[in-house]
Amino acid sequence: MAKELYVVGIGPGAADGMTLQAAEALEASQVIAGYTVYVDLVRERYPDKEYLATPMRQERERCHLALQAADGGRTTAVVCSGDAGVYGMAGLLCELGEQYPGVDIHIVPGVTAALSGGALLGAPLGHDFAVISLSDLLTPWEWIERRLVLAARGDFVICLYNPASHKRRDYLRRACDILLRERSEATVCGYVRNIGREGEEHRVLSLGELREIPADMFTTVFVGNSRTRRVGERMVTPRIPREREE
Amino acid sequence: MAKELYVVGIGPGAADGMTLQAAEALEASQVIAGYTVYVDLVRERYPDKEYLATPMRQERERCHLALQAADGGRTTAVVCSGDAGVYGMAGLLCELGEQYPGVDIHIVPGVTAALSGGALLGAPLGHDFAVISLSDLLTPWEWIERRLVLAARGDFVICLYNPASHKRRDYLRRACDILLRERSEATVCGYVRNIGREGEEHRVLSLGELREIPADMFTTVFVGNSRTRRVGERMVTPRIPREREE
Repeated sequence: MAKELYVVGIGPGAADGMTLQAAEALEASQVIAGYTVYVDLVRERYPDKEYLATPMRQERERCHLALQAADGGRTTAVVCSGDAGVYGMAGLLCELGEQYPGVDIHIVPGVTAALSGGALLGAPLGHDFAVISLSDLLTPWEWIERRLVLAARGDFVICLYNPASHKRRDYLRRACDILLRERSEATVCGYVRNIGREGEEHRVLSLGELREIPADMFTTVFVGNSRTRRVGERMVTPRIPREREE
Repeated sequence: MAKELYVVGIGPGAADGMTLQAAEALEASQVIAGYTVYVDLVRERYPDKEYLATPMRQERERCHLALQAADGGRTTAVVCSGDAGVYGMAGLLCELGEQYPGVDIHIVPGVTAALSGGALLGAPLGHDFAVISLSDLLTPWEWIERRLVLAARGDFVICLYNPASHKRRDYLRRACDILLRERSEATVCGYVRNIGREGEEHRVLSLGELREIPADMFTTVFVGNSRTRRVGERMVTPRIPREREE
């Protein structure tokens, strides 16, 4: 008996942000598991599946439920917002999957917020970049601070995930203050909120202005490198052809 | 008259790696432009479009041709491998688009190699990561070296694009030697080649072993952080729950 588990990145929110491969994996699944918000996004499209929705923090339990469903012979998909692996569930499922040796785990990538948000803003990630989560739920804040400093020194474009939450209202401001030690106030930045969902918004602004915005957990932030510029309403990081710029 | 230009990330190669939104954009286009290799991937699926294929280096010309086609009223798509913005054409098209004020530019994101390659290997990008291109065609090597050092010091997972080409055969080895100053030989690494295409392969190995592989321009390389581990045949970077690891 085939025992299949798909870990599926469904992209930014709206159904058309998922890949054809992701749609096929969901189509092939009898059971769909995930955090309530993402499951609801998928349910509209696939109303006839069996759903296992679990609240935010219960990730380990969600993984076991999904692995058990697959182990019992029901093809199961675990849905993740954005990509399956970028701060997603794929890693934990691979680890816990060792306890279910009969289950084949297939990881289906998706468009993470750095890419979908980048497309809304223009092309902020046109050159080397770093992705850093500001959530200190699982990572000591000192590590986060150190990574911000080093990424800024390396003149990476920086994409910030989880810039704030109810309990961490001032984290984006703290991050901006750290970055402002290494980068100018005029650094071209951008943010997007609710990508592909109701209330979608985006804005290009300076690092000085970014410090003042009220971010939430549905916001993704982009801090340009020293060559990032505004092009019309957009944020663009050029690939720096030497003949043009030197 | 609508003058629409889509910049479309088509994902890793096979058609099912593109998003539904990307497929809709190609469907809606009369003209499809791009580098020959990527155009050929799309042509099978959409044989009845007008194609503008140009060789590797002629990106500026390709952009102008596409913008002119759109400006003439033919809805046009420029296809990029992976994402539209990550080392892609979106930035240049935004910049040159200023010369074609009547053309509306829509950027459609796609699954870049960091994500599609990551999915093949397991979950290497489960925590903060940096993406660095080893191509010094447009970037001075000293910048690349500096970014490698800083990313390694920050314990970022590192994803390397363009690790080698005919003219840059030893660049991956040079990068590994730089990383080996900061990270142990046993660091868990991986590489993928020809993602989603004929000849696809992937392998998990140590940083010491990575130094010896013959990379090419269709290879994407992953260097784990200090907590990345092998799980079965896979490369997994955990999200470091404190209660488990400290």
